[in-house]
Amino acid sequence: MSDDVTLMQNILTESDKIAEGIGEALASRGIYAINLIGAPGAGKTSAIIRILKHLPGVKAYVVEGDITSDIDTQTLTALGIEAIQLNTGGACHIDVSLLKTTLDALKPEKPGLLFIENIGNLVCPAEFGIGERDKVLIVTAADGSDKPYKYPLAFEKAAAIIVNKADLMPYVDFDMDYFMRGVRALNQDAPVFVASARTGQGFAEVAEWISGRM
Amino acid sequence: MSDDVTLMQNILTESDKIAEGIGEALASRGIYAINLIGAPGAGKTSAIIRILKHLPGVKAYVVEGDITSDIDTQTLTALGIEAIQLNTGGACHIDVSLLKTTLDALKPEKPGLLFIENIGNLVCPAEFGIGERDKVLIVTAADGSDKPYKYPLAFEKAAAIIVNKADLMPYVDFDMDYFMRGVRALNQDAPVFVASARTGQGFAEVAEWISGRM
Repeated sequence: MSDDVTLMQNILTESDKIAEGIGEALASRGIYAINLIGAPGAGKTSAIIRILKHLPGVKAYVVEGDITSDIDTQTLTALGIEAIQLNTGGACHIDVSLLKTTLDALKPEKPGLLFIENIGNLVCPAEFGIGERDKVLIVTAADGSDKPYKYPLAFEKAAAIIVNKADLMPYVDFDMDYFMRGVRALNQDAPVFVASARTGQGFAEVAEWISGRM
Repeated sequence: MSDDVTLMQNILTESDKIAEGIGEALASRGIYAINLIGAPGAGKTSAIIRILKHLPGVKAYVVEGDITSDIDTQTLTALGIEAIQLNTGGACHIDVSLLKTTLDALKPEKPGLLFIENIGNLVCPAEFGIGERDKVLIVTAADGSDKPYKYPLAFEKAAAIIVNKADLMPYVDFDMDYFMRGVRALNQDAPVFVASARTGQGFAEVAEWISGRM
C-alpha cells in the first residue's frame, strides 16, 4: 500500500500548488473568490442571483460546477451574469486542474467577486481548497437540523453558513437550537444567515458580509 | 499516468469481487438487499421506518452509512429495528470492504430484507455496486425537478425512485412533467413513487413493490 500512499501524496501536493497559483492570480487582480458548497438542490445558483442583486456595483463572475448539464449557466447568463460552465463528467468535486482551464477560458480580469459553485455534495467539495479565499456553505431548512452532526467537515471549514429555504420552516421540523449547537461545536466564528432565495429574506445580510470580506 | 490507471483498475476489480461475494452470501440466506441512495436530508432513514411499518411480517436489517455519528442507528434501534452503524470517517460512499466487516458484525442470518443506507450523496454512491440486488433512489420535492438532468447516473441505475416530501409540493416549484421527462430519458423501467415520510403517503406502494422483488 505504500506506493498508493506516496502516489496520493504527490497528487495532493501538486493540487495544492495549482490551488495556490489560482489563489495568487485572483488576489493579484483584486478578485475575491468564494467556493460555494451545498447538497443537490440547496439553492446555490438561486443564492448567487439573490446576492448579486444586492451588489449592483460589483463586477461578478461565476464558475458553475456540475457533473453534467449547463442548466444553471443558462439561467445566470440569461440574467446578464458572466458565467461559465465547468462539467466534471462524473467527479464529485471541482478539481483544480479543471478549474484552472476554466478560469483561463473565463479570463476574469477586473477586480470583483468570483463565485465558484461547487458540485452538489456536502462531502467531497469540503475536502479540497481550490484557490478560494472563503468557503461558504449553504444548507436548507427542509434538509433537517442534524446536518452539522453528520457532515462536520463542511461546517468546520465554512467562513459563513446560509440556512436557505427558511420560507419552509413552518412546514418542516427544523430545530434551530439543535442546529446551532452542532454548528458552534465545530465552528465558533462563521456567521449563520437564515435566508430564503424564494422570498429574498436574509440575502441583504449575506451580501453585506461578502462586501466586508472583499 | 498508466501506472495510476492500472492501480485503479486493480482496486476496482478487487472491489467488484468483494461486492459479488457479499451479494452471493446474502442471496444464499434469502436476504434481499437494497442500496438506498439519496442526498443529505432526503429522508432515507424516515423512508426505511415508513416502509417497514407496511412489512410487519418481514425480518429486516439496516446498515446505516454515515461519515460520522450514529444518530440514525439510535433512531432505528429505539423502534426495535435491527440496525448497525457504518461510519466511513470521511469517505463519500460505502466501500465494500467496510460493508463486509459491518455485515460480519451484524450477522444477518434469517431470510428477509436488508437496507444498506448509503452516505448522503447523489454522486459517489451511484458509481459502485456493493452487493445489493437493487439500488433505490430517494429525492425530494424541495430539491427541485432538475435533479435527473444534473445527477443522471443515480437515476439511470435506480430500480425504483421515491420522490419524498410530497407534502411540501404546495410550497415549492416542483415541475413533475419536467422531472419525469428527465427520469424517462435515463430510465424507462423504474417505478416512481410520490411519497411523504411525514404523512406516510405513498409508502404502502413502495412496500408493495419491495414485497414483489423479494
